[in-house]
Amino acid sequence: MNFPSKLIEDAVNEISRLPGIGKKTALRLALHLLKQPEAIAENLTDAITKLRKETAYCRVCHNISDQEICSVCQSPRRDRSLICVVEDIPDVLAIENTSQYNGLYHVLGGVISPIQGIGPEELKIASLLTRIDQPHSGEAVSEVILALPSTMEGDTTAFYITRKLKEKGIKVSTIARGIPIGGELEYTDEVTLGRSILTRVNYSVD
Amino acid sequence: MNFPSKLIEDAVNEISRLPGIGKKTALRLALHLLKQPEAIAENLTDAITKLRKETAYCRVCHNISDQEICSVCQSPRRDRSLICVVEDIPDVLAIENTSQYNGLYHVLGGVISPIQGIGPEELKIASLLTRIDQPHSGEAVSEVILALPSTMEGDTTAFYITRKLKEKGIKVSTIARGIPIGGELEYTDEVTLGRSILTRVNYSVD
Repeated sequence: MNFPSKLIEDAVNEISRLPGIGKKTALRLALHLLKQPEAIAENLTDAITKLRKETAYCRVCHNISDQEICSVCQSPRRDRSLICVVEDIPDVLAIENTSQYNGLYHVLGGVISPIQGIGPEELKIASLLTRIDQPHSGEAVSEVILALPSTMEGDTTAFYITRKLKEKGIKVSTIARGIPIGGELEYTDEVTLGRSILTRVNYSVD
Repeated sequence: MNFPSKLIEDAVNEISRLPGIGKKTALRLALHLLKQPEAIAENLTDAITKLRKETAYCRVCHNISDQEICSVCQSPRRDRSLICVVEDIPDVLAIENTSQYNGLYHVLGGVISPIQGIGPEELKIASLLTRIDQPHSGEAVSEVILALPSTMEGDTTAFYITRKLKEKGIKVSTIARGIPIGGELEYTDEVTLGRSILTRVNYSVD
């Protein structure tokens, strides 16, 4: 593309570095910012700058936090005997939005992937084990729930963590896999359907 | 969505103001920026700030420009007797990328749309007429090519400009509408196919 202005060329190049944004979308966004009042662009750049410079991570669970210890880890209303292990920050947000979980979290920052050179040392696994030995709240952890992706990497990570935790005698569970609520049997893939039969649960009508 | 941090909430809100970007994409972009080296976020915000503060528009054709008069209007190699009228800046880029046009441009900044309250006064139509009366290069304009969208608003604008230009005795043309090159007849909509027969051109084998 030939740009009429160096400024717009630079802006398009920087915006199109973002994932999923190509040159055409970047140009559309740049021209949009040009048409809006200056405050819109200022607020955007301020928010990004602050996010990048001031964001900290919780010392305990490694989730994003404005303080040294995040609001979940600090809350006295959360069940501190439960820790849910997730791959990354969006997973915490997704689980929080269900309002079905009241325990703590532990953000690994990825999953074990030998191809990408990510071993257990690159993840926050050691910190999970330390946290179980010395809980920051003083309350003992009774169960670790694994909410990891159902990929080869996720399974490897789950296996690794489970072995480490079994040594400590901690109960380990994993989130249920099965047919989504509202999902139709005939359109479900064979692996999910097969597993949902193998891992069937008792049906009670009490 | 519940955010673990005010900083990420602000960033997501500001990013999701951009057209076509929802909260989920905004969150993905914000987390991406957090994971990248700080320089990536800095370059992005710098480019946007500069774009917004320093960008100017060409005094003659109203295209984006780093100088008072843009490189197209200044170039001695362009045919100054031709002016191509377009709705907005991306149209200039699209035509420039074809390498088939060597004249000047005129960016209206929109099209006449009574519903949106955009009349001829809101557009750069008066400036087009002034430009034809007093060309900045001194060379007379012989033809105005209308490259406006084929919508009701585009047609209204074309009609309005044509009437004004006919008074001045300037030749007005419009870009050809028809079946795209490589397009198949059976899949072309009726309006385009019907018009392409009515506006057929002489076929020569010389």
